[in-house]
Amino acid sequence: MKLTILFGGASFEHEISIVSAITLKAKLSGFDLSFIFCDQDHRFYLIDPSKMKANTFSKGEHKKMPQLSITNGSFSQKSMFGSTEHNATVLNLIHGADGEDGTISSLLDFFSIKYIGPRTDASVFSYDKRYTKWLCEAKKIKCVEYEVVSSNEHQNINIEYPIIVKPARLGSSIGVSIVKDESDLDYALDVAFEYDNSILVEPFIEGVKEYNLAGFMAKGKVHFSIVEEPQKNEFLDFEKKYMDFSRSEQVLKADITPELETKLKSTFEKVYKNLFEGALIRCDFFVVDGEVLLNEINPIPGSMGNYLFEDFKGSLELLVNSLPTNKRAKVNYEYIHSISQAKGK
Amino acid sequence: MKLTILFGGASFEHEISIVSAITLKAKLSGFDLSFIFCDQDHRFYLIDPSKMKANTFSKGEHKKMPQLSITNGSFSQKSMFGSTEHNATVLNLIHGADGEDGTISSLLDFFSIKYIGPRTDASVFSYDKRYTKWLCEAKKIKCVEYEVVSSNEHQNINIEYPIIVKPARLGSSIGVSIVKDESDLDYALDVAFEYDNSILVEPFIEGVKEYNLAGFMAKGKVHFSIVEEPQKNEFLDFEKKYMDFSRSEQVLKADITPELETKLKSTFEKVYKNLFEGALIRCDFFVVDGEVLLNEINPIPGSMGNYLFEDFKGSLELLVNSLPTNKRAKVNYEYIHSISQAKGK
Repeated sequence: MKLTILFGGASFEHEISIVSAITLKAKLSGFDLSFIFCDQDHRFYLIDPSKMKANTFSKGEHKKMPQLSITNGSFSQKSMFGSTEHNATVLNLIHGADGEDGTISSLLDFFSIKYIGPRTDASVFSYDKRYTKWLCEAKKIKCVEYEVVSSNEHQNINIEYPIIVKPARLGSSIGVSIVKDESDLDYALDVAFEYDNSILVEPFIEGVKEYNLAGFMAKGKVHFSIVEEPQKNEFLDFEKKYMDFSRSEQVLKADITPELETKLKSTFEKVYKNLFEGALIRCDFFVVDGEVLLNEINPIPGSMGNYLFEDFKGSLELLVNSLPTNKRAKVNYEYIHSISQAKGK
Repeated sequence: MKLTILFGGASFEHEISIVSAITLKAKLSGFDLSFIFCDQDHRFYLIDPSKMKANTFSKGEHKKMPQLSITNGSFSQKSMFGSTEHNATVLNLIHGADGEDGTISSLLDFFSIKYIGPRTDASVFSYDKRYTKWLCEAKKIKCVEYEVVSSNEHQNINIEYPIIVKPARLGSSIGVSIVKDESDLDYALDVAFEYDNSILVEPFIEGVKEYNLAGFMAKGKVHFSIVEEPQKNEFLDFEKKYMDFSRSEQVLKADITPELETKLKSTFEKVYKNLFEGALIRCDFFVVDGEVLLNEINPIPGSMGNYLFEDFKGSLELLVNSLPTNKRAKVNYEYIHSISQAKGK
């Protein structure tokens, strides 16, 4: 199968996107893969697959590779003798800003390039944790209670300590702190405000049971991964998550009851349907007193959560053949014609 | 002031965008305006201002004008002797799809082009009427009750007739019907499903008081237009709205109490703040039993609602000088460096 891995981006998660792409290269051997790197200045480069190593980018060696421009239907590579069009289906693997905030999806939609990944509206609801809460409220999905703190107004926090403080729009635990006592709050807020001017505060639930479940819609139904109970030490910090993005060995199924598995899957479907079509997403759930709460939606999970799927390649193939198509409005100028006629022009 | 009017788009509202642009040209005389047309195939053309007439586009004459490509920081015009960069601030005047759904905002953000218009998240919440309802719920803004009907599942409607049936994602009254009796429902749904596979059903409130209010944030506060009580005959059909988009004469202030004006303005602020910064929007309100309900958000109103402002040019100047700036993540490859070091590479 032909697939273009698009990675990088002007994002705090730029480096983990590189790690994700390198991991997928190994995991998808046998696929006809090409690699397009988006640098932090939003230039696109076609990366020689044999150079898909972290050092290539940190040393700036990608700059010697062919630069591409995005055009109708493809990424275009100009040369002295004309141009080569790279028009395979794209797998959007840009984590965080650009990739998960709706920018890349809009760009690919505008230029009619098919892609795996969340569409623009789905991106907005998963990227900003405030809007994920709104989604939960609208779809009657349970989630952890929260308050929003803005950098431009002083607010009191009414949630009992310990609390967890998160920038509204960042993944991979960047800028996240657990605050056990009010005296540590200001420092945690300062850290988080480095990354965003809207901060979410939630109760930190000590020892909460956590389960991850990935899936995607194809041929009219949701295909699920196994349920994983992630290992944790309070929460993964950035360096651990960074390593986490390079996971490629299949994990073991969580030891849970069939009832809980059913609950997790039906909550996943509620989140996914009529919004995330076209994407393979991972939902991270908490289970408190037997109740399933949505913690976070990862619309582009690290290395696409490959380690959660029994047949990862087959899953991607299924998804590629079920991507949503855009119905674009046709313009026939009938109103201008009729008005011109009425005016006798 | 230098400003590029971006109009057209692959949208059912393509033609009214042309009318809007022609109207603004007349209204903004004295500004240093340029005009970029996005055709239905997403090609950009630089339009000679003297050719800004509806017939130019319906006859396809724009195709003889210079084609532009979007690049970092500008729309670029290639010629035999190099290229000319058009890098003025853009006024996004593409109504409906592309312009109001987050596509154009993402494109302009990605290529670092400054613009007047809703950002991507604001677009998602105003373009899809379902998400406007979610916004209302989250921000505790009153709105008309509703139900969603999907093309892929049969649902009973529990709202009392007469009802109003609207495609979830179209403005300008396209595909909208008032249904007085259940026997007319199927036809109305068929019409609406032509445009969208999600339909909103709301009670049709006979003789409801309607008020429109536009505004924008600049220098830390919201600047309001006058409040208008729009004329109506049931609701404006597309042809009437089409003419409506070419309005340029200032309208009279609605005859309302100062209390109601204050309520309308505070509801507008609730809608606008922390979401619509950068845009001049118009909110259409209903007033029922003294209560203000949000009916619709127009994040790019027809001809920018120029007729609602006492000093329209001054307002645009204020807004241009208060546009949000994007903080883009800087990548320094510290994780890749530290991991490479740890590995001894």
